[in-house]
Amino acid sequence: MNAPASSAAPVVGVIMGSSSDWEVMQHAVSMLNDFGVACETRVVSAHRMPLDMAEYGAAAAGRGLRAVIAGAGGAAHLPGMMAALTEVPVFGVPVPSRYLRGEDSLLSIVQMPKGVPVATFAIGEAGAANAALHVIANLATTDVALREKLKAFRARQTEAARAMKVPL
Amino acid sequence: MNAPASSAAPVVGVIMGSSSDWEVMQHAVSMLNDFGVACETRVVSAHRMPLDMAEYGAAAAGRGLRAVIAGAGGAAHLPGMMAALTEVPVFGVPVPSRYLRGEDSLLSIVQMPKGVPVATFAIGEAGAANAALHVIANLATTDVALREKLKAFRARQTEAARAMKVPL
Amino acid sequence: MNAPASSAAPVVGVIMGSSSDWEVMQHAVSMLNDFGVACETRVVSAHRMPLDMAEYGAAAAGRGLRAVIAGAGGAAHLPGMMAALTEVPVFGVPVPSRYLRGEDSLLSIVQMPKGVPVATFAIGEAGAANAALHVIANLATTDVALREKLKAFRARQTEAARAMKVPL
Amino acid sequence: MNAPASSAAPVVGVIMGSSSDWEVMQHAVSMLNDFGVACETRVVSAHRMPLDMAEYGAAAAGRGLRAVIAGAGGAAHLPGMMAALTEVPVFGVPVPSRYLRGEDSLLSIVQMPKGVPVATFAIGEAGAANAALHVIANLATTDVALREKLKAFRARQTEAARAMKVPL
Amino acid sequence: MNAPASSAAPVVGVIMGSSSDWEVMQHAVSMLNDFGVACETRVVSAHRMPLDMAEYGAAAAGRGLRAVIAGAGGAAHLPGMMAALTEVPVFGVPVPSRYLRGEDSLLSIVQMPKGVPVATFAIGEAGAANAALHVIANLATTDVALREKLKAFRARQTEAARAMKVPL
Amino acid sequence: MNAPASSAAPVVGVIMGSSSDWEVMQHAVSMLNDFGVACETRVVSAHRMPLDMAEYGAAAAGRGLRAVIAGAGGAAHLPGMMAALTEVPVFGVPVPSRYLRGEDSLLSIVQMPKGVPVATFAIGEAGAANAALHVIANLATTDVALREKLKAFRARQTEAARAMKVPL
Amino acid sequence: MNAPASSAAPVVGVIMGSSSDWEVMQHAVSMLNDFGVACETRVVSAHRMPLDMAEYGAAAAGRGLRAVIAGAGGAAHLPGMMAALTEVPVFGVPVPSRYLRGEDSLLSIVQMPKGVPVATFAIGEAGAANAALHVIANLATTDVALREKLKAFRARQTEAARAMKVPL
Amino acid sequence: MNAPASSAAPVVGVIMGSSSDWEVMQHAVSMLNDFGVACETRVVSAHRMPLDMAEYGAAAAGRGLRAVIAGAGGAAHLPGMMAALTEVPVFGVPVPSRYLRGEDSLLSIVQMPKGVPVATFAIGEAGAANAALHVIANLATTDVALREKLKAFRARQTEAARAMKVPL
Repeated sequence: MNAPASSAAPVVGVIMGSSSDWEVMQHAVSMLNDFGVACETRVVSAHRMPLDMAEYGAAAAGRGLRAVIAGAGGAAHLPGMMAALTEVPVFGVPVPSRYLRGEDSLLSIVQMPKGVPVATFAIGEAGAANAALHVIANLATTDVALREKLKAFRARQTEAARAMKVPL
Repeated sequence: MNAPASSAAPVVGVIMGSSSDWEVMQHAVSMLNDFGVACETRVVSAHRMPLDMAEYGAAAAGRGLRAVIAGAGGAAHLPGMMAALTEVPVFGVPVPSRYLRGEDSLLSIVQMPKGVPVATFAIGEAGAANAALHVIANLATTDVALREKLKAFRARQTEAARAMKVPL
Repeated sequence: MNAPASSAAPVVGVIMGSSSDWEVMQHAVSMLNDFGVACETRVVSAHRMPLDMAEYGAAAAGRGLRAVIAGAGGAAHLPGMMAALTEVPVFGVPVPSRYLRGEDSLLSIVQMPKGVPVATFAIGEAGAANAALHVIANLATTDVALREKLKAFRARQTEAARAMKVPL
Repeated sequence: MNAPASSAAPVVGVIMGSSSDWEVMQHAVSMLNDFGVACETRVVSAHRMPLDMAEYGAAAAGRGLRAVIAGAGGAAHLPGMMAALTEVPVFGVPVPSRYLRGEDSLLSIVQMPKGVPVATFAIGEAGAANAALHVIANLATTDVALREKLKAFRARQTEAARAMKVPL
Repeated sequence: MNAPASSAAPVVGVIMGSSSDWEVMQHAVSMLNDFGVACETRVVSAHRMPLDMAEYGAAAAGRGLRAVIAGAGGAAHLPGMMAALTEVPVFGVPVPSRYLRGEDSLLSIVQMPKGVPVATFAIGEAGAANAALHVIANLATTDVALREKLKAFRARQTEAARAMKVPL
Repeated sequence: MNAPASSAAPVVGVIMGSSSDWEVMQHAVSMLNDFGVACETRVVSAHRMPLDMAEYGAAAAGRGLRAVIAGAGGAAHLPGMMAALTEVPVFGVPVPSRYLRGEDSLLSIVQMPKGVPVATFAIGEAGAANAALHVIANLATTDVALREKLKAFRARQTEAARAMKVPL
Repeated sequence: MNAPASSAAPVVGVIMGSSSDWEVMQHAVSMLNDFGVACETRVVSAHRMPLDMAEYGAAAAGRGLRAVIAGAGGAAHLPGMMAALTEVPVFGVPVPSRYLRGEDSLLSIVQMPKGVPVATFAIGEAGAANAALHVIANLATTDVALREKLKAFRARQTEAARAMKVPL
Repeated sequence: MNAPASSAAPVVGVIMGSSSDWEVMQHAVSMLNDFGVACETRVVSAHRMPLDMAEYGAAAAGRGLRAVIAGAGGAAHLPGMMAALTEVPVFGVPVPSRYLRGEDSLLSIVQMPKGVPVATFAIGEAGAANAALHVIANLATTDVALREKLKAFRARQTEAARAMKVPL
């Protein structure tokens, strides 16, 4: 396992099906880092490491994780399987696939049956960043300092949009 | 506004674009009730009541809501706009549309730009129930009793699946 | 707000969700300029500036706007929300999205529910130019000079098509 | 040609490719009638009556039409061809098709090339009603009384949405 | 576990995510029975019984299974996960889903990453029957009697098609 | 083989993959009968009768067929294979499939590689009738009487469309 | 009009909506030239030159055309409208569109209503070449020399395929 | 025919519709070679060499083939037709097509009717490799040495995934 991104005990696990997913998933880690939310990052392949995946799920709650962000592409089973393996809430990121551009990833993640939810976000980089932001918003409901950071982030984001000019 | 579904102050708002969405969205309310999570239920149309929607969003955090579950169909803007209006995390449910069966609803909800996330679930009844379950899982990360309820629910669900027989 | 594209009071507002939409939306502004229809151009993000958007909508009619052209991509909520916020007619342009090439943008804009219309055009540059042309055609129904300009434009367009040769 | 829906000279032409489209297109006529906007209704098949279609287009402006609402299904060419034949603005309604539920109709109408716009609305009944509402909104920009009617309609619509209760 | 469909030790496991998949999956069992290929039938939910699924996969080869036919719908993870859990070849059947008619099921099953294959068949009943026929064809490559049965089945099928008349 | 639909030597072969395709394909036969074009009708399954199909193709030209209309659904290979087997022009009809409503049929028929064309028509009944009409139009280029019939048919069709009224 | 591609009176008209379609449509002209079938080539825009299109259709039969090959992209109306304007058979080629890669073009061309057929071919270059080949096959049914050329072409094509080696 | 990839009598035939499919299909051959499974490789075009295809199918079983891997793109008929022509099990690989990226290939291969199965894999390179792996898994059910190789391959694959690090 890679070292946690910060020295604090991780409260968020960011997992992905392959190291090739990192280009997308780094946007989740980057956002968590910006907010000072301790996370760990790990490749957990549902199809090539199913037992490791099961162990990861079984240990997630006990290790103090309060969210798992899982990214995968194509027949993307990692988010849904992780949701089956732990009661810790799972946030899924559809990684764009080579030929179907993530339509397969999206449907494989979002169309979960009743009883085992995966919170799903947009295909690609935006989805990875937003999964992290949603985790932060959930954590912020019981963390005043984080909520203030989130509100400040959103205020800055609004100001940045307001400052946008088109190059007439 | 409809009365809260329980006498406790609601911690979850369940909103939808039209009363015709109730057939789907009742599955969210029913799940929250099963877990004893106090919620309120309200029709908030993004397109016909945009200012009410803005007020709802502005007041959500202050009123103690820790999650908003929003369902809509077609060009489904309610979940994304609510996410723009409050830092309370928003959980979106794509309601099936008449001709495109919810493909339009799903894309309108899940494909949010970086910075304003909506946690999206499956089209229809399963998605509504799962949005509630995901909210519960988030709440359960800081509520031991709720976590036990969730674990019990999942254990019963596993037993029910194990008991399934096919009619040979 | 950017200065109006001409010194006359703008009769058309051209808005977009991000400055990155300009590459597409400039085709609307360019067409309006060609016809001498005064317009203003502004970034109004539905998701990052929802209150500014509401103000823009509330003021649109009073400021003399007779049309709003709104472009957005992905979960494209700006056109539909603007249509909810003003009785000024709204013309929507689906901006191509990174992975789904604007299919999400198109459905998010065109599939509006009964009661709140958005006139929708083709994905991308052609749609932006055509939104402007449709606005011009509407204005021309009560503006003889503009109608003559439009007829001349169409006649030139016909001549240009007639003059096309294939390089045998 | 069917008689105009009101005794006044029609300002809107509502045309459709077949009488079987009436089930959808009546929602446009009904809306225009509610607003007292005089319209005529006619079957004009692009494929079976192309010369009549051309005549209709050639005469539209001279007859005082300020908008043409055109509905068609499948390979839906009527709206786009009408837009080619008159400078009067055309509003297209994708009528649901038997097997592809209007996806073909939508793409055939909305994806017009640069230079010849069709304002496109949702598939089916909602789209027909909204095409009419958009025409009304355009007419209302130079008709104070109609604008007041439109604002009243929108206010009533908002009230109706506000009054919606879910059957808890 | 349901009793094997015949008294012989099963060589094929037919599993499905829910008893509601039986309507489709019975076509696989029926075909195996017709050929006298011993099979067992069991509900194994990837999402509600992940550990049972892992056990099933771990034991499959040792128990003498030479093929696993797995059917599931929506975010259909059972076939791919079973393929991850055993070297016994897995044959996947996309069960039609409520709103997307099995498009989600198909993509979730067929788009497996390099290294972990699932042989995928048509959506629904035809796919279930064909998964069984393909298993039979594989078994027949080392079983002369079964190959003769298969050839006879195909010959009868050809004769039945040849005998088809249209009701002129 | 079914008897030819008329006593004259057939000039058109109407073939289909299964007798269940007749509900759609009868619209081709009916149109040919209306024009007095002699045809034969036969079930030729590409997948269950491949050698019969090859024989049919090999004999088509010598038997005097000037067109083959082929209908099939799902993975619809009959039209394309017939086009591979004879230089007689092939006209393909996508028969609606159970779950994908003919989208699979359409793509399987129309997307032929360079060198082996299939003229493809709309999904379902309209496509079957139109395949026959296109065959008739081709035959009519060297048959004055048939051309007159075709012109009369089209004139009647135009009159029928002109006579359509909407039930105001 | 461009000069005919050969000095003989053209029997095939190859038309397209814009000179930008030439990159695709040249594959039709090239094939016709290879077979010595006289054709003319012309840009006829349905949307920018609707009256020229009507004239082209009205004159087609009288000028001796026995087929019209029409290519267009996006909301591709040229093939269907030409089919409405002449009894000469029309062969449609879906030109790839910028964002939807020709899916819109395909549906706009193939989904014609009963009564007005367009023979449709694959998206892009293969479709253009195949439209020409299908025209040739139709002409060859009454032209022995052309039929021999077609059979020779097909035989050479078969030989070329047989000669293909993979670079092991 | 190309020489077998190894000197042993081939047990797997790898065929494809064109030499241009080799870029994808080489991943099947490479995998078979890695496992020491003797295969032959050949271009067999369903549409340009239908009789050669029929011969290939007729001889497959007698020549000792225990599996045929068939790749094709667009209207991909080779896998399904081969399945119609031999009782040897067929494994289909959807080769990406130019404009529709293999969606057409996938549906043309997977949606086979009841009675004639094609085991289908992912679009492109992953699908080619996986078709080979699935063949190997089937062969391994009666070949202890091959099963050991397969288990070793899977174990190495698991280790490789476990060793993946993200570049924090």
